[in-house]
Amino acid sequence: MLTEVTGGITAPQGFKASGVKAGLKKSGKLDLAIIYSTVPASVGAVFTTNTMAAAPVVVSRSAVKEGKVSAVVVNSGCANACTGTQGLVDAKAMAHITGQLLNIKDQEVMVASTGIIGVNLPMDKVETGIKMAVEQLDEQGYEQATTAIMTTDTFPKSCAYEFQLGGKAVRIAGIAKGSGMIHPNMATMLCFITTDAAVAPGILQQALKEAVDVSFNMISVDGDSSTNDMTGVLANGLADNTLIDTTDSKDYQDLLAALTQVCIYLAQQVVRDGEGATKFLEITVQGAASASDAKQAVMAIAKSPLVKTAFFGEDANWGRILCAVGYSGAAVSQDKISLAIGDVIIVKDGMGVTVDEKNLKIIMAEKDIIVTVDLGLGKERATMWTCDFSYEYVKINGEYHT
Amino acid sequence: MLTEVTGGITAPQGFKASGVKAGLKKSGKLDLAIIYSTVPASVGAVFTTNTMAAAPVVVSRSAVKEGKVSAVVVNSGCANACTGTQGLVDAKAMAHITGQLLNIKDQEVMVASTGIIGVNLPMDKVETGIKMAVEQLDEQGYEQATTAIMTTDTFPKSCAYEFQLGGKAVRIAGIAKGSGMIHPNMATMLCFITTDAAVAPGILQQALKEAVDVSFNMISVDGDSSTNDMTGVLANGLADNTLIDTTDSKDYQDLLAALTQVCIYLAQQVVRDGEGATKFLEITVQGAASASDAKQAVMAIAKSPLVKTAFFGEDANWGRILCAVGYSGAAVSQDKISLAIGDVIIVKDGMGVTVDEKNLKIIMAEKDIIVTVDLGLGKERATMWTCDFSYEYVKINGEYHT
Repeated sequence: MLTEVTGGITAPQGFKASGVKAGLKKSGKLDLAIIYSTVPASVGAVFTTNTMAAAPVVVSRSAVKEGKVSAVVVNSGCANACTGTQGLVDAKAMAHITGQLLNIKDQEVMVASTGIIGVNLPMDKVETGIKMAVEQLDEQGYEQATTAIMTTDTFPKSCAYEFQLGGKAVRIAGIAKGSGMIHPNMATMLCFITTDAAVAPGILQQALKEAVDVSFNMISVDGDSSTNDMTGVLANGLADNTLIDTTDSKDYQDLLAALTQVCIYLAQQVVRDGEGATKFLEITVQGAASASDAKQAVMAIAKSPLVKTAFFGEDANWGRILCAVGYSGAAVSQDKISLAIGDVIIVKDGMGVTVDEKNLKIIMAEKDIIVTVDLGLGKERATMWTCDFSYEYVKINGEYHT
Repeated sequence: MLTEVTGGITAPQGFKASGVKAGLKKSGKLDLAIIYSTVPASVGAVFTTNTMAAAPVVVSRSAVKEGKVSAVVVNSGCANACTGTQGLVDAKAMAHITGQLLNIKDQEVMVASTGIIGVNLPMDKVETGIKMAVEQLDEQGYEQATTAIMTTDTFPKSCAYEFQLGGKAVRIAGIAKGSGMIHPNMATMLCFITTDAAVAPGILQQALKEAVDVSFNMISVDGDSSTNDMTGVLANGLADNTLIDTTDSKDYQDLLAALTQVCIYLAQQVVRDGEGATKFLEITVQGAASASDAKQAVMAIAKSPLVKTAFFGEDANWGRILCAVGYSGAAVSQDKISLAIGDVIIVKDGMGVTVDEKNLKIIMAEKDIIVTVDLGLGKERATMWTCDFSYEYVKINGEYHT
């Protein structure tokens, strides 16, 4: 049982946060955030699989290897990607400056950047920003931090819950930003999760990986995976629960359930704020012969521009959905496939059936739409969340100039 | 040396064509075509790899197995896809009706359909249409046939050439239609090629496969592969050249070159008419360590909605291009990659360089743009043609109602 609480990422004990205006965004908005745990925290993190991984990803990958992290420093407005040797020097400097001011080792600082690719960080502004952000660290600083990591996001994404772990009240919270380049493995998507649970680093990493596989790796806005994505979780143990040091326990399952809920909530928020999105689509492929078939099929549907534009046009164009399943690579038997939008069955045994057009029209006009494809071949299933493709998507991405 | 000639697909000796109004299109435009060879022709064909392959694809696959075909019957306005048993009965009936009227076997007739998915063919209209089309078969009928296979195409796509094969003048010609769902392996893309060359069926099939691999399989409009795609070539031998019955000959190479030119020309025409396209992009990845790396990288770039919207916005957003290379799966070394748009080098050794912004702006404003990525790792290369992603794409596909 998770209960919602206020306080965002500073809701768990021992966490402070801040967000400041370092002058990296032309708009003059908040653009640098720090999240800080007053005691060293176990860390887990997953990073982009893009081979053009940005400098901050390289630095953070190295930091999490130690298993303990005390701070995360994040800037928006500049991705510090494709910036060569200087980029690495700058990302390391961000960790160093933050570490010095907080009196922790460089290796205890995770670094993240988001924004335009191919431009070097203005390090004078970054340094001034970090100093301000450290000074402003506050147990109520979650709103500033949540806002400072945003780029084209139209609303901040945050959640916080309390739950029981071996009789102790534990809190877990997270923030995330989108909203273009959102795609499995992952996106210009940053997510930071804090918890006061006591968890061994390797176990935390395992839990995060499991949670991300059914959340951030199952959303798609435009099929592009970015150079800068990361999801990190810091667990500082101040809730005083018995240390979770095995995956083979009820406590691990409870933690995993909470972490998964945080990740799914934030992943869905990212999709809801997908660039130009007017619809939120939950797509499930069930009845697949294998888990990978289910995943391949659901991903092909969720990525198809033809499917996404059809939903934008509020057109139940099921041919495009079946077509996507057909080229997905999943095992399919044409005469066994069925398809429903909301509770209206549209296709049975591979063929269109007569539908209640009036009811279907109402469903297609809603903002949230559930699509279910049954392959009729087995018991495996996969769910993915995506949005439609609108004029606005083209406008945002055609006009977001370098 | 290929010389352009007039006459479209009826330019080669012994071919007749027609296009009629069968009433399948709501617009009342031409919607049924027949291409006919007065003598049985060797046939080669490639079909969609979509597992939801439409009924006409199933019927045509079976027809080409015999190696000889005399006629192709094509309708637009209805894809006869996802139509179950009745769909197969109807596709077979199209072959049978055509065969009866032309006094050839059902197996000598290829069948193709394009249009809306999930709707059964109105067979009474189809039958009347086939009768009219057979009556109107004409040695000058290429324009009607070219127009009758169109769906959302804004212009007809056709070419015809003459070349020498072992001292004989040979003609080769083709027609194609797009224009949504265009993607490798393939799209609601139909292409029919006629030639009076004498070629053995297996050899013709091999040549077609080679030609399609560097043409229709290297174009992308929106990343969707349709249920109905096919490219077929009919070679009736009336040019009286020595029969090409081996791939190990100069004649084979000359035929392959001509066939490839026809396929590349028509493939490019399909991209130029991509739904909502305002730009024609020729993207080359060179310096790859392997041929598959080159192909993976060029496909990731050509498919990326973020890259495509950037070109629509005339923004040289090279970060998006490098990002796509990064998630493509191709072997990449960040500090060896370079990128040019037109003749302007934008990225060297993985980093942006100072560019002549004025010159770049002129290039980005052009309709045809050449993008070259050099991975700096080897000698392999691949070229792909695509178009930008515009408001109009969303409009066409959001409003093309079922």
